[in-house]
Amino acid sequence: MTISLSANTTIGFLGAGQLARMSAAEAFRMGLKTAAYSGSAKRMDDPSRQPLEWMTPLRFPGTFDDETALIRFAKSCDVVTLENEFLNGALLERVEAESGTPIYPSPGTFQRLESKWLEKETFRKAGIPVTPYRIIEDTGDLKEFAAEFGFPFVLKSSKGGYDGYGNVTVSTKEQFTEAIRSLGGDQGRELIAEAFIAFEKELAVQVARNHTGTVAYPCCETIQKNHICQTVIAPAKIDPVVAEEARSLALAATEAIDGTGLFAFEFFLKSDGGLLLNESAPRPHNSGHYTIEGCIASQFENHIRAILGLPLGSVEMRRPVAVMENLLGIHNRPARVDGDTPLWSVKDAHLHVYGKEESRTGRKMGHITLLGDDHISVQRNAKQLADEIAM
Amino acid sequence: MTISLSANTTIGFLGAGQLARMSAAEAFRMGLKTAAYSGSAKRMDDPSRQPLEWMTPLRFPGTFDDETALIRFAKSCDVVTLENEFLNGALLERVEAESGTPIYPSPGTFQRLESKWLEKETFRKAGIPVTPYRIIEDTGDLKEFAAEFGFPFVLKSSKGGYDGYGNVTVSTKEQFTEAIRSLGGDQGRELIAEAFIAFEKELAVQVARNHTGTVAYPCCETIQKNHICQTVIAPAKIDPVVAEEARSLALAATEAIDGTGLFAFEFFLKSDGGLLLNESAPRPHNSGHYTIEGCIASQFENHIRAILGLPLGSVEMRRPVAVMENLLGIHNRPARVDGDTPLWSVKDAHLHVYGKEESRTGRKMGHITLLGDDHISVQRNAKQLADEIAM
Repeated sequence: MTISLSANTTIGFLGAGQLARMSAAEAFRMGLKTAAYSGSAKRMDDPSRQPLEWMTPLRFPGTFDDETALIRFAKSCDVVTLENEFLNGALLERVEAESGTPIYPSPGTFQRLESKWLEKETFRKAGIPVTPYRIIEDTGDLKEFAAEFGFPFVLKSSKGGYDGYGNVTVSTKEQFTEAIRSLGGDQGRELIAEAFIAFEKELAVQVARNHTGTVAYPCCETIQKNHICQTVIAPAKIDPVVAEEARSLALAATEAIDGTGLFAFEFFLKSDGGLLLNESAPRPHNSGHYTIEGCIASQFENHIRAILGLPLGSVEMRRPVAVMENLLGIHNRPARVDGDTPLWSVKDAHLHVYGKEESRTGRKMGHITLLGDDHISVQRNAKQLADEIAM
Repeated sequence: MTISLSANTTIGFLGAGQLARMSAAEAFRMGLKTAAYSGSAKRMDDPSRQPLEWMTPLRFPGTFDDETALIRFAKSCDVVTLENEFLNGALLERVEAESGTPIYPSPGTFQRLESKWLEKETFRKAGIPVTPYRIIEDTGDLKEFAAEFGFPFVLKSSKGGYDGYGNVTVSTKEQFTEAIRSLGGDQGRELIAEAFIAFEKELAVQVARNHTGTVAYPCCETIQKNHICQTVIAPAKIDPVVAEEARSLALAATEAIDGTGLFAFEFFLKSDGGLLLNESAPRPHNSGHYTIEGCIASQFENHIRAILGLPLGSVEMRRPVAVMENLLGIHNRPARVDGDTPLWSVKDAHLHVYGKEESRTGRKMGHITLLGDDHISVQRNAKQLADEIAM
């Protein structure tokens, strides 16, 4: 179950974006090699070189449906991991079997999360409260859903959506036909409706798990803008009992999918104090970037430890408060950080830039993390520092 | 003076060993590209790929005396830095002039440190106390030196020695001829004699400097075994007045060489409480590896910041004590860390492996750092953890 840290141990990443890049940095620290498989799947369609590809000579171009190329890639690695969830579980299962190289999270775990519908089924059956949902095939299903849960609600592609793409808010029955059409439901794409939850806050918990044990990071708070994560505040400013409940649910959810690796779970905190599991990700997650400087072992380190079968590192925070702000592109131009940004002179402020060649409006280009002693000043200062960096 | 952090900014490393690798990790965090020039200079003679070469697709094979190849390399980079001091300063000056790419530390700084003799001259003239030394050309010089400073003393190659190679201890006058011969003095190699110092401790201070300012890390204590650094204890367990004096001398020494980049200075603490500057290195140094987890900004981060012309990061320690133990090879075999080493389960213990393919007895293969609250327990535990890892 444990993969030897030898001079020739290679960790293969399916996907070469910033999550793979930050994970790879931890693999390099352990003396390992990394290999990058990157293709033209939905999130991988950037013509320029991907972030991880600047960090390794071992690059494998290929698409995520090319079984032969995937098997060849896996055979050249000692363990393979994923940085996105838009992969076919059955295909991964064949790649693992044919190559003999373990894939973590396992194809079995992956299949339980492969669509939003399967994901919700998996967690609901494990007794974890989830947002009410239904499979939607036609306007009749939407009508029933609206009757049961009211307007507005959200219609989602069951597979492949991210950061708000693949979601439509439905507010009246006049929108039914167009909503289904706009998400490809009339073309046979699986859609689910989710009840609209009037939440107080959005929370997240990252969990690392393998055969040696399981660790859950502190419950943090995420602030989204236009469906994209903007700010993460750790720990969340909530009742500690609720924070512990979120961690328990995250642990239970990881058990429910028999997860090996790093997983992130996003929750709605309702006004009555109850929690609903909203989304999950079988990989390091934007909500956990604060752990790089904020915790003794980061989500990326524990991801690598988990897939290698090593004991997991401490999730304890280094200072009382950590705030992460995403740096989203505000230009369409070659990526650049101006050298005179005030961040450099602020103690315990940390800049991460992902090495993407082109900035585009709204694209995740990097993030900053500020550590400190109290929520009010750290949040305010982090926001100011991020605003000064125009990528 | 400030180099833009654009998507295509490339930092070139002359040398691709572990120091370049750990520096490169910080460059990647800032979204930069790195290029590795590695050749067959004295420390670069490993036939297998060097540590940094597994971390970048931008590799330039070449020797360190190939002016054309060096210029081509420099032209492809935005800034070039060095990870060892065995380079020719005049050559670097030509490479910088021809390529138009800045090299930091500058060729001018480099020339002031290019031999042990020049180094001592530079610091002595700046009023920094150094170990007594003389240029040695023949046995007559040795006789005079022995008469003035007594036996034993150390005879050293003025250029190119490291980790005890290129040093001979001279205890009697019968050894004079053989000592000179063994270091190539009879072949025209420049030799210096240094008085033997009965020191209490060896100390080190790392300094980062550029046009924005200068920072000095806490004074740490180094423990050598067979002339190779084994343990670093930060902060040093010494009178705080002496620690501040060491930092002041390190700052003065950096000024004396007009250094831009990261510099390390090693001192002898004499039994009378006085300090002597023993050695300097124009680059990140083994004595500063503890800063990766031990300080808010590591020596590697500040090295990158310094050569880019950015403001420097905080050198404050994260916890009261950090102890680093080198992992030296104890086998001749492919490098390997066994997965069941107890380190993984110890909070705030951190393993770094350099990605060298082959372990050799005495070779620096990696290091561990343990952070904690008191010197006694951290030193004891770090030693135990390092002993358990047989590389």
